[in-house]
This record gives sequence, structure tokens and C-alpha cells, in this order.
Amino acid sequence: MTKTELSKLGEFAFVDRLTKDVKIKNSSTILGVGDDAALISNEEGKYSVLSSEIFSEGVDFDLVYTPLKHLGYKCVVASIADIYAMNGVPQQLTVSLAISARFCVEDIEELYSGIRLAGERYQVDIVGGDTSASVNGLVISITSLGVVNANEQVGRSGAKPTDLICCTGDLGAAYMGLSLLEREKSVFEGETGTFEPAFESNEYILERQLKPELNIEILEQLRKQGIKLTSLMDISDGLASELLHLCKSSKVGVRLYEDKLPIDYQTAKMAEELNLNVTTVALNGGDDYEFLFTLPLGLMDKAREIEGLRFIGHTTEEGLGANLVTRDGREIPIKAQGWL
Amino acid sequence: MTKTELSKLGEFAFVDRLTKDVKIKNSSTILGVGDDAALISNEEGKYSVLSSEIFSEGVDFDLVYTPLKHLGYKCVVASIADIYAMNGVPQQLTVSLAISARFCVEDIEELYSGIRLAGERYQVDIVGGDTSASVNGLVISITSLGVVNANEQVGRSGAKPTDLICCTGDLGAAYMGLSLLEREKSVFEGETGTFEPAFESNEYILERQLKPELNIEILEQLRKQGIKLTSLMDISDGLASELLHLCKSSKVGVRLYEDKLPIDYQTAKMAEELNLNVTTVALNGGDDYEFLFTLPLGLMDKAREIEGLRFIGHTTEEGLGANLVTRDGREIPIKAQGWL
Repeated sequence: MTKTELSKLGEFAFVDRLTKDVKIKNSSTILGVGDDAALISNEEGKYSVLSSEIFSEGVDFDLVYTPLKHLGYKCVVASIADIYAMNGVPQQLTVSLAISARFCVEDIEELYSGIRLAGERYQVDIVGGDTSASVNGLVISITSLGVVNANEQVGRSGAKPTDLICCTGDLGAAYMGLSLLEREKSVFEGETGTFEPAFESNEYILERQLKPELNIEILEQLRKQGIKLTSLMDISDGLASELLHLCKSSKVGVRLYEDKLPIDYQTAKMAEELNLNVTTVALNGGDDYEFLFTLPLGLMDKAREIEGLRFIGHTTEEGLGANLVTRDGREIPIKAQGWL
Repeated sequence: MTKTELSKLGEFAFVDRLTKDVKIKNSSTILGVGDDAALISNEEGKYSVLSSEIFSEGVDFDLVYTPLKHLGYKCVVASIADIYAMNGVPQQLTVSLAISARFCVEDIEELYSGIRLAGERYQVDIVGGDTSASVNGLVISITSLGVVNANEQVGRSGAKPTDLICCTGDLGAAYMGLSLLEREKSVFEGETGTFEPAFESNEYILERQLKPELNIEILEQLRKQGIKLTSLMDISDGLASELLHLCKSSKVGVRLYEDKLPIDYQTAKMAEELNLNVTTVALNGGDDYEFLFTLPLGLMDKAREIEGLRFIGHTTEEGLGANLVTRDGREIPIKAQGWL
């Protein structure tokens, strides 16, 4: 494969090359890549929804075991998750990259192919962005813009005591995938002969880490069934952290049931293998990109009909705080794990 | 001054601290910092305008001579310039930062104070963003969202042969400011005793480099006078580069007059001091953040009434290419300088 240095191609030819396969999918996208800015037209009674995420090499991702295409895909998923987390639908995104001399054009095309793939999967148009060199490593910033009907918007602040707490999918899998990759990396680095990573029967947790998908069908179902959520967020920094956000924003307490936490078999198996408490993994793993939401207790039966929706606890009066009810009936306070 | 490490504070407290002084100014900003995404409501007949920029330490800025507050200000100016360059008005922005361990909270607050100041100056709300650590250096990505009346939007593709080419302000000053700073930096690095940088009577070019402002009053005047531009862009990568964009997008040629290029006295003086051709400086300097636009020849008299508007050339048939008419009457092809 021919490798072209960025400096050889020049920025404009480079951007042309990156964006030539980009297709506009939403009729609201009046103007995408190719001018100073993108144009988006909106109807009345709707909100635009805007969110940005940044991903830094060596911190948010490790290219030793992350294929660039997967990385591009995941960055988009992580960014648009915030739009869905307002009960909105993402429609446009911009991609800004700071790229060190270590990367060639083909590398960044590979990254972009993942970005485009996610754009196609979630029907989001790539409408702009910027590139710069970086002294060291790769930094990716993705901004998503979406819409939501003004009367359907759901934030974090609407939960009332005695609401049901629900989530989609299962938790902790991405973190176990990451832990496995990290373990195999350190094994590999100590290895001198042929190396065969132990990835067999761990495909699910690896995919959750490397190429996450969003359970947006559940959000669509909820809208279709007319179930009005009282709060909604995506689980990116771990369930515990998001629950504490919910408590703070909605001025409620939460009671979470350990035995209700949705945990996949591979997650549990890997936690055991790595000698980790699987509940801690599910609470603090991060990178789940599932949705966490609350709804009034009276809507339980209606919500029960939606496949894949998990009831994991309920809200309480604020004064009661955020607690986990363990399998043996004890209540222990929920704490978020740190950042950096 | 107390210096707090980022890791000590934690992300959420940190973001709270950064955004506590942010005030919402536009009634269209339904929801800013504090939830998963920002909400923006739009009326019919208007477009949202979205653009992102990324700035990388050691490439786009040098903290040896760039105060962090100025840097924050400049990054906002550079980002919103793209919204004005669509004849739009910026209203919201998001700020994403990748920050190495070298920086403390106070540093980033300083950066943010410049971002806020620019937000206040240009009436733009900071509505979100993201932060991550970085292994090395600082990366800043700013996304701007604005609006433009659908019938007032101006891109790059509408120029017709025989249009007048105009610009705001003067050119090359920021580049001369940068060159001066670079020269003084290398003098400083060779110095052992007391060092007094030679910045006197160069305040203008230094300010153009470190704290640029946008000539938006001229764009407002043009709208007020009902002068419909045929194309509009901001000059960020140098006039030559932007003119070539114009040629490509509008399928025209350009004839630019060397003796019409607006050049400040300090710019000319510094170019001479550094033994640089001042026309090359004005054409390729970069970081001007002035506006370049075209309008029909018939509107010349009307446009002439607008203070600060410069006529620098005219468009031609595409086949004639992009040329500079020198002071001695020769025509030489305009070339853009490289990137990276």
C-alpha cells in the first residue's frame, strides 16, 4: 500500500480526499463540507441539540490494540450518544483532528472510514471540521448537532422520588474488554516468540470496547409507546457516576439493586478471571454507552413490554442519598470513581 | 497564587469552576452547560451555521510568548470568523480541550477567561464542550453555531466575472507580529543576562497576532445598506490561499492589484527589518481574520460609502486564472503557500 505523507498532499487535497465519499442524508443539511461552515435549517417547535467530545491518544485510546477504523466509529458513537441522551436525534457532526507526523494519509483515511461508517449506521452527516498537526499523538474532537421536538426533550433534572430507574443493554462489558486488551498487551510486551492473544470466547466484551453500538431502538419504542421519561442520560463514565449526576440534577436519592444489574456472561467471567468484583465493574466500568432513564412508577406495566429495557432501581427522597442494595440486603452508599 | 492539579479537583468540579461565570445571552439558548448537550431553538426561514476549529500547541501556538488568556480569545475569534464568513451571526460555541499534566487548573482558567471574554465581546454563549487529558501539550477545539437568514446567506461560490473584490482591515500584520515574537524568542534563548524584548512601536502587529478582532461592523453595514455580496469568506490562511478557494468555488479568475493591498505602516516596517517582501507577507501571512468578499461592479459607489472597506481587485473569466498585477504593471500568477 502506498503511504503518502500529510505534508506531501497539502491540507485541501487531503480534506477533499477524506470527504469525497461523504453523502448528505438529511434534507435539513443545506450545506456540508466545502465552505467556511455548515448550514442547517430548522423548523419551529424543534430544538437543535449540540454536543462536543474530545479523545486523546494515550489517554482515551491506545493504538497498540485499537484499529483506527474502530476508533473513528467509537468516537462518533460516543459523541452522538449525548444527542440521544436529550431524547434527540443526531443529524450532523464535525470532526476536528490534531495529527502528529507519525500518521500518514492512509492512517487518517482509515480513521475516517470508521467515522463515515458510524455516520451511515446512525444517519448522521459529516458536515465539517478542521485538521491541524500535533507535536505528539492524535487528538480527535467530534461535535454533534441534532434535533428534538421541544415537547419531547428530556434532560437530567426531571426525576421525582418513586420514579423507576431503568437502563438499556448490559454494563461493565466494555471495561472488561479494555482490561483484556491491556492484559494481552502487557503479555505481548514481555513476549519474545510468537504471540497469540487470548481473545477467543471474549468477542462480545471486545466488541463492546472497540465498536460500541447504541440501543436507540429502545428510545424509539419509548417514544412510540408514548412513555414520557422524567430523565435520560447516556452511561459513558460508569453507572455510579451517572446516577450521582441524576441525584444532583433532579434533587432525588436513588436506590439501586445489585441483583438487578444487567451483566453479560463474558463480563462476569472476565471479572472473575481478573479477580475483580463484577458489581464494581458494572458500576464504574465506563464506556458502556447504554442509556439510563427514569419514568413514573405508574408506567411500569407499559414499559415492561419494551424488549431490552431493564429495571434496576428507583428514586427516593433526596435526603436518603444514593445507595446500592446488595444481594444480602445491606445498603451501601454509591460513590463515583475519579477522572484523570 | 495557589496552583491546583487537575487530578486533585476531578472533572466535574473542574467544569463547574470553569463555567460558573458563563452567562447566557441569546434567548435562543434554551439550555447551555450542565446537561449532556446544549439546546438551541430556531425560527423558520433561518439556517443554523456550524463550524469547528482545532488548535494544537507547538503547531498553532507557542506558549513561550502567547499568554493563555489571549490564546483563548484568539481561538474563539478564529472559530466564529467562519460563521460570519457565511454572513451569519454566531450564537453558541462548545470548547473541547486535551490538556497535559503540565497545566494546572489556574492555567486553564486563564485560557477560559479569554474564551469568555471573546464570548462577551461577540455575544456568543459557551454552551458545552469536553475535556480530556493529553500525553503531551494542549489541544483546543472550538465549535461555533450561528444563524443566518436563509435569503442572506453568502458562500464562496456566487462570484461572477467582473465582480469587485474587497476586503476589510489590513493584511500581513499578524504574521509580522508572529515573526517579531519568534525573533525575540530566539534572541531570548541565546541570552544569559537581563532580556528586554524589542516590542516598542510594534504594538499593533503584536495585537493583531495575539488578540485579533473581527471587522464585523463592515458586514453589518453591508447588510444594512442592502448590498448583496456574491461571495464572502474570512482570511485565515492568507489572502492568496482564500482567493484560490474563491476561484475554484465560483469558477472565476481574479486580478489583484499590488498597489491596492492594505498594509499597515508597522507591517511594512517590520517586513523591511526582517528583509521580507511586504507583498508576499500580505498575500501569504495568515492569521489575518479579515473578511474577503465580492460584489457586483454596479454597487461600487454604494460600497464606497462604507468606512474601512478596501477594493483590492476584480474577478475575471475563469480561464484567465488568478493573477497579481504588480506596481510596475506585470501580471504574475498567485500561488498559495503550504500547510503543515
